[in-house]
Amino acid sequence: MPKRVDHARRRDEIALVACRAVARHGFARATVEQIARAAGYTTGMVAYYFDSKQEIILAALRLILRRMDQRLQRPPAGPPRDGLLEVLTEALPIDAQRRIECAFWTAFWGQLSADPRLKRLNAWVHREYRKLFERCLAEQWPESRAWSAGVRGQALRSLITFLNGITTSAVSSPRDWPARVQVRQLELHLALLRNWARGASAQGITE
Amino acid sequence: MPKRVDHARRRDEIALVACRAVARHGFARATVEQIARAAGYTTGMVAYYFDSKQEIILAALRLILRRMDQRLQRPPAGPPRDGLLEVLTEALPIDAQRRIECAFWTAFWGQLSADPRLKRLNAWVHREYRKLFERCLAEQWPESRAWSAGVRGQALRSLITFLNGITTSAVSSPRDWPARVQVRQLELHLALLRNWARGASAQGITE
Repeated sequence: MPKRVDHARRRDEIALVACRAVARHGFARATVEQIARAAGYTTGMVAYYFDSKQEIILAALRLILRRMDQRLQRPPAGPPRDGLLEVLTEALPIDAQRRIECAFWTAFWGQLSADPRLKRLNAWVHREYRKLFERCLAEQWPESRAWSAGVRGQALRSLITFLNGITTSAVSSPRDWPARVQVRQLELHLALLRNWARGASAQGITE
Repeated sequence: MPKRVDHARRRDEIALVACRAVARHGFARATVEQIARAAGYTTGMVAYYFDSKQEIILAALRLILRRMDQRLQRPPAGPPRDGLLEVLTEALPIDAQRRIECAFWTAFWGQLSADPRLKRLNAWVHREYRKLFERCLAEQWPESRAWSAGVRGQALRSLITFLNGITTSAVSSPRDWPARVQVRQLELHLALLRNWARGASAQGITE
């Protein structure tokens, strides 16, 4: 019997290496050749799985999204705190793996103005992330389901903005952003946002 | 008499073109040759002013910083609102010029992981920006001078994080971030932050 190759796994493996390569060497310098070498494959082998660098990047985005989705569904560990804080912390560059993912994001964002194809990918990935965080909000702050669509939208937007801000800040100035500072900053933001949304809902604000 | 050339002005002119080139074509593809061509100069002429692309980028960073400084010192126009909102709006990608500057930032941040020399530049520029926003905070919210250093530091950090978050979000998804949405989002964040800092100060929190 011929040896069976797990193609899905191999695609994931290449995508993961691509993610690291982009995080380390920047978007432009992470070529297909370089990714293949780092993965221990020939360029031909990588070409068997992916038609272009664009496709590898798409696979990397999908992989990160899937991992994030899995992490966000994990039950919170440790003493009970705000559940939303627990799950959103998963999106921050607080350890080696997440730092790579966040450096990848920052490199990806940095390339968007220059590349219309990446812009289209971003529109898709942005919608997916929004859905993911929307689900977290509904699950972790059940009260938010009773907020007006305007208040909920505003809270969600503020939350994603803040996560993007920490990502960018922590990737560009890692010394200023140890994990506990990131978490503390997010904790404050969530507390302020929750208070505001409660107040706005109580006052019947529907903006 | 020989024709006098305003060298400082020419350097600024090249830096501005570099800023646009990076915003449009990405960091890696904005070469010295490409910048020279876009500025209408020969590569040799650009080399007369700058030793390397690194130096051009430094000049672009300085130029953007200087412009931001000038804009932040302008007296607020329009009906009196929160002065801090007025001045910080100057840092957001709300018009063509600022969109270029913010796209430059995003491209610059995206390149940091891959380039140790840019990392050093970033440490400097990050300190300069912090000082700038610190001054705005003290001027526009005079009450903040009475806050504890901890509360003031936390507020400043949250504010810069949020500005970076809007910058990244608006550059990567411009359709979702028209100017009024950016301003509205910043307005909410400032209001929440001010309330929190007042409360924390009243309670004597010094974290």
